[in-house]
Amino acid sequence: MKILVTGFTPFGEEKTNPSQDIVSALPKSINGARIIPLIIPTVRFKSIQRICEVIEKEKPDVVISVGQAGGRFSITPELVAINRDDYAISDNEGNQPIDETISLDGPAAYFTTLPIKEMVKQIRAHHIPAECSTTAGTFVCNHVFYGISDYIYHHHLQIKNGFIHLPFSSVQALHHPHQPSLSIDEMQRGLELAISCCTRVKD
Amino acid sequence: MKILVTGFTPFGEEKTNPSQDIVSALPKSINGARIIPLIIPTVRFKSIQRICEVIEKEKPDVVISVGQAGGRFSITPELVAINRDDYAISDNEGNQPIDETISLDGPAAYFTTLPIKEMVKQIRAHHIPAECSTTAGTFVCNHVFYGISDYIYHHHLQIKNGFIHLPFSSVQALHHPHQPSLSIDEMQRGLELAISCCTRVKD
Amino acid sequence: MKILVTGFTPFGEEKTNPSQDIVSALPKSINGARIIPLIIPTVRFKSIQRICEVIEKEKPDVVISVGQAGGRFSITPELVAINRDDYAISDNEGNQPIDETISLDGPAAYFTTLPIKEMVKQIRAHHIPAECSTTAGTFVCNHVFYGISDYIYHHHLQIKNGFIHLPFSSVQALHHPHQPSLSIDEMQRGLELAISCCTRVKD
Amino acid sequence: MKILVTGFTPFGEEKTNPSQDIVSALPKSINGARIIPLIIPTVRFKSIQRICEVIEKEKPDVVISVGQAGGRFSITPELVAINRDDYAISDNEGNQPIDETISLDGPAAYFTTLPIKEMVKQIRAHHIPAECSTTAGTFVCNHVFYGISDYIYHHHLQIKNGFIHLPFSSVQALHHPHQPSLSIDEMQRGLELAISCCTRVKD
Repeated sequence: MKILVTGFTPFGEEKTNPSQDIVSALPKSINGARIIPLIIPTVRFKSIQRICEVIEKEKPDVVISVGQAGGRFSITPELVAINRDDYAISDNEGNQPIDETISLDGPAAYFTTLPIKEMVKQIRAHHIPAECSTTAGTFVCNHVFYGISDYIYHHHLQIKNGFIHLPFSSVQALHHPHQPSLSIDEMQRGLELAISCCTRVKD
Repeated sequence: MKILVTGFTPFGEEKTNPSQDIVSALPKSINGARIIPLIIPTVRFKSIQRICEVIEKEKPDVVISVGQAGGRFSITPELVAINRDDYAISDNEGNQPIDETISLDGPAAYFTTLPIKEMVKQIRAHHIPAECSTTAGTFVCNHVFYGISDYIYHHHLQIKNGFIHLPFSSVQALHHPHQPSLSIDEMQRGLELAISCCTRVKD
Repeated sequence: MKILVTGFTPFGEEKTNPSQDIVSALPKSINGARIIPLIIPTVRFKSIQRICEVIEKEKPDVVISVGQAGGRFSITPELVAINRDDYAISDNEGNQPIDETISLDGPAAYFTTLPIKEMVKQIRAHHIPAECSTTAGTFVCNHVFYGISDYIYHHHLQIKNGFIHLPFSSVQALHHPHQPSLSIDEMQRGLELAISCCTRVKD
Repeated sequence: MKILVTGFTPFGEEKTNPSQDIVSALPKSINGARIIPLIIPTVRFKSIQRICEVIEKEKPDVVISVGQAGGRFSITPELVAINRDDYAISDNEGNQPIDETISLDGPAAYFTTLPIKEMVKQIRAHHIPAECSTTAGTFVCNHVFYGISDYIYHHHLQIKNGFIHLPFSSVQALHHPHQPSLSIDEMQRGLELAISCCTRVKD
């Protein structure tokens, strides 16, 4: 079994992106499943394209994209991706689409095919805050989540896919007073627990 | 022109619901459009059914449903309704669906057909906090928003529709320390400004 | 009976200060007590000096200073003033004392002599959010509260005095997303209710 | 050099208190200073008395009391203790004083004699969120902080003392949705860094 896990480069005014740090530090295998880490640019369409190239080459069974959502209190697997790009800030190449669709002929939304409630249960069982989210926003995170869902749908692939948002890391919180944060260590363990829910071998 | 505006009865542990109070107090017409106020039960399916009965009878041009989302900071018109019922608490008749669809054969989501960005702009121009929201949750509010969107779609109606969430009112905030709130007066004016964006006659 | 009520000019990056707007709009009398409104500069020592001049001239029975504390959820009468200036930003004349005392030989703190719990009770009874606060911070608000307390103590005056903090007003909240706010109207009524608790004639 | 560090038992509806867990797990020495851990009951006066007994027996150079303040975002060394008991909930023996003094003839407040800004700087330098606080509340935490300050003052002792508040731990946050938290590991390291600021040997 192969699991492709993607993280983003930093964006906006942030100097780090915990999704990049954590995805880069994943072990080579979890519960017997091979982990393929991939860092993608925080750029419209290029991010999706990069993942699709690796999907074609590696043919993973699962794709989990991970991103940053400053202001959240916990690790939040996402329920649904929507066909909407509406960026409050520019992406890393200066694109700032307003009220645009991601796929002209795509459906309004795709639900995740990952076991997000089981993920939340497992992460919390290890005393790390987590809860399901019902919005991935309308920036590059949702863009990637929708784009990969749409690609899988149109290519009739059997890949399970979804998105997990991380809050600010502790080091980011130093510059965001009165914003919640988790430690990189907690988020690392949380993500590995979430991934382990997608493997066939149970621990 | 006719605009049907719906509000909910109180639910959960709340004794009031600002959507009920405010919808009940709407003027008979706004910008020349006739306002049809309707209070619906916070009950799965019955809420949708009640609105559909009035749609059939009154044939409104616009349907705006209004509900409560405690914890929000401002008046939040919603972007999208999703085909998911997942209730953290029971509705007012004890239903608590978990991970269920609202419409078995419906699409994953419907986007609002209301001018939500214009609404936000108008409300803020009058110094009342407002912003667009990308999730209506998975309780009866989203249920109604999705259900009416689905009804309009399947019946090929030309009705514009959408949903607006209100934060706690000041009186509710007395029992929710450290939760943001708006006054009933501000929310009343905000809702009327939002409605005025849906009338053909501009002010 | 005379009640001196002071408000501040805007400071930091704010263009308005609700304490200024509200104090300026107070009625000439409340419950038979004459209200003396006074706007003071958000400047170290000058603010205290300005109030002391008016105290000497008008000989009020009560002094209530009102200021802004962005981020608060409600109207918050303060319990205690501390002998510490430690400014995170400059005041309106560029002063930014760090870890300094306000009065070299003054005590560490003064408690308010206003009926703050009764104030909170009255404001809430009128459905406006309020709660007592145990810190006025270490900026010009606390500076004025401490300075006037110290002046009254050293001059053996019988004046009751204290401080009330206001949250962001709705118009300020437009530029502070995800910050709580109250309407100017609510804060106006709340302040008048607080003042009415200091008059001898009960309503 | 000897440093007495105290933690509290759980109180209110909480089953754990991170101050207890972390103080119990402190190393025997930090930077050459001997650490004396002490768990005190969350009970008015008994808490102070227990610390005073150990002060008399051990004659520490520094006393750092540590407690819980759910809702905070970071580790917060306290600036000031006030002479006020005003408990929103009962302590662990059912006492709930309202608007009472802690010491009948004590001053309104005592400032900490710990290097709290240096503590915050050191903790943040290790990428753990921290900031100074200007209120320790009016519950047993402030009670102990004031009581020990008063004891040291009246006995003319050369002991440095102060108080550090901890936010919810991650495991507590599981039952407090939308409340910020830090991991026990981060708080453990943060407290040790704070303690190290009080030792004469610099690292």
